[in-house]
Amino acid sequence: MNLTIRPIDAHSVSPTEALAAVLAPELAATEAEIGARMASPVGLIPDVAHHLVDAGGKRLRPLLTLAAARTCGGGGQAAVKLATAVEFIHTATLLHDDVVDGSSLRRGKRTANLIWGDKASVLVGDFLFARAFNLMVETNSLHVLDILAKAASTIAEGEVLQLATTSRGEASRSRYYQVIEAKTAALFAAACKAGAITAGAPLEWVEALATFGLRLGLAFQLVDDALDYGGLSQVLGKNTGDDFREGKATLPLIIAFERSEGDERLFWQRVLARQHRDGDIDQALSILQAHGAVEATLQEARNHIQAAKTALALLPEGVIPTLLADLADYVVDRHT
Amino acid sequence: MNLTIRPIDAHSVSPTEALAAVLAPELAATEAEIGARMASPVGLIPDVAHHLVDAGGKRLRPLLTLAAARTCGGGGQAAVKLATAVEFIHTATLLHDDVVDGSSLRRGKRTANLIWGDKASVLVGDFLFARAFNLMVETNSLHVLDILAKAASTIAEGEVLQLATTSRGEASRSRYYQVIEAKTAALFAAACKAGAITAGAPLEWVEALATFGLRLGLAFQLVDDALDYGGLSQVLGKNTGDDFREGKATLPLIIAFERSEGDERLFWQRVLARQHRDGDIDQALSILQAHGAVEATLQEARNHIQAAKTALALLPEGVIPTLLADLADYVVDRHT
Repeated sequence: MNLTIRPIDAHSVSPTEALAAVLAPELAATEAEIGARMASPVGLIPDVAHHLVDAGGKRLRPLLTLAAARTCGGGGQAAVKLATAVEFIHTATLLHDDVVDGSSLRRGKRTANLIWGDKASVLVGDFLFARAFNLMVETNSLHVLDILAKAASTIAEGEVLQLATTSRGEASRSRYYQVIEAKTAALFAAACKAGAITAGAPLEWVEALATFGLRLGLAFQLVDDALDYGGLSQVLGKNTGDDFREGKATLPLIIAFERSEGDERLFWQRVLARQHRDGDIDQALSILQAHGAVEATLQEARNHIQAAKTALALLPEGVIPTLLADLADYVVDRHT
Repeated sequence: MNLTIRPIDAHSVSPTEALAAVLAPELAATEAEIGARMASPVGLIPDVAHHLVDAGGKRLRPLLTLAAARTCGGGGQAAVKLATAVEFIHTATLLHDDVVDGSSLRRGKRTANLIWGDKASVLVGDFLFARAFNLMVETNSLHVLDILAKAASTIAEGEVLQLATTSRGEASRSRYYQVIEAKTAALFAAACKAGAITAGAPLEWVEALATFGLRLGLAFQLVDDALDYGGLSQVLGKNTGDDFREGKATLPLIIAFERSEGDERLFWQRVLARQHRDGDIDQALSILQAHGAVEATLQEARNHIQAAKTALALLPEGVIPTLLADLADYVVDRHT
């Protein structure tokens, strides 16, 4: 065989890809486990699950579990099972989210609810959620079960809180942070924590990684919510503007609302009451821009990344903490 | 205070009520736990959960857990937590089922999805499901966690199988039994098994109680499916006829289909393809009656009850196994 040696271009590799390369053996085992454990004699289950799991997700949450385990001394097969469980909990949440939001696109593909219907999405989500617990039980660790089961109920609580807040038309910063900590950051934190615990890490490392995950998760959601308004370019694509249309008060809207007066404030109140008119989104983008609301949201994300990296400093130096810090920066920087 | 002593009329107490009376202390503790553990700062969660949990369910599944625990020597607080977890898994399933079936009535009350919407039902179901796992973790028993987590994924698998079977318009007896074993009987079996294990029962008792639960669950679903065609009276009320309308091939339909020829068979094929016409339900009831399909369904239920009671004979004699046997008979007999 004729092999051509290609030089590695450091700039073409994202920190996520670099982390995936370092964790290649356990990540490959996790991919195999994901495939094996979504199998079922009921063909609709793997059909729906594969659609979502294969849709080009970056496996960020399982990577966190594997990275936390490796940096704390390993974790072996238990870490692989936990990483798989974390991905299944995440996938189940996405399936149910898309039903709840009536979404038709995710990661550029038609959503499962659009292809197979809401019923299949609800039930296959339930299956993946239950399967996640099967995997956790197999690790024989009540401690990680406790952490991930608590994260699971926190996620559901956050989703219900978001639903209730949206239907009341609230625009509250503290309520927003409560929602994103529960629905997003809790699983990032639990993914890190479970990985550390399964590797037998001392309490100090476990807590450091949990803080890292929590702050990374908050930043991740803030960036996601900034991108839904087109990020700094504030140009909307076909996957953006959903939060505004659904009347979800995310941080860019909340900051613009806080900084608005007079007519602008009346505009937001009408929007939050979901009395939409044509051209509302353009007016919203223009007010957001005038008040620097997207930039302010990204700045809050940067603050959380800073806290995430400070937590990492409590771990012994090594390639994994370095890559985790790079990954944390990358979550915000690639969009600024 | 002037107390009038009322004689107890034995015939006015159902076996379920008798069992509840014998298990009164742990059942009261379970009711308290159910109330306490559906609490959440997110008010929509207890609102939706209470609506369903207070709707006059008989707590049959938690009763099985408590009965199994008591007859095997106790179980204490762990049995109470497991009974609560079992009720939460059941309630989560009901919430999601009503969304999937688009139901508007359950136990004579408007369904949660009708009052609060599908979104709230999906998400509160997720919360109760996660909360069930929190409770199980608190029992510190990986063994019961394993059993209930497997039951949870089996239930979801059964629900998806039912969805796929219905959408294909199949009327297969083996497929039907696969569905009801998974979606209903698996939780009855796991409820019994978990109770026995948490009380430290020997394997023989655990297996006997698991078989009892499985067969009771099969009979319970068969009776439920017979009642959806009005039971032996075959008079439909406002809560009946749903399976037929939804194109679900339950055993009464399958038996009538098996015993039909010519025009009758063509009728069923049209119905299974969901090409409904006015008056279909009356014709269905008339063909069911001609072939004794409801009576045959109830006879299969009786056979499962017989097997359930045979399994009970492996337990030491006592008031609980006697009441469980009465309860098993009652599941079929009160409708014949």
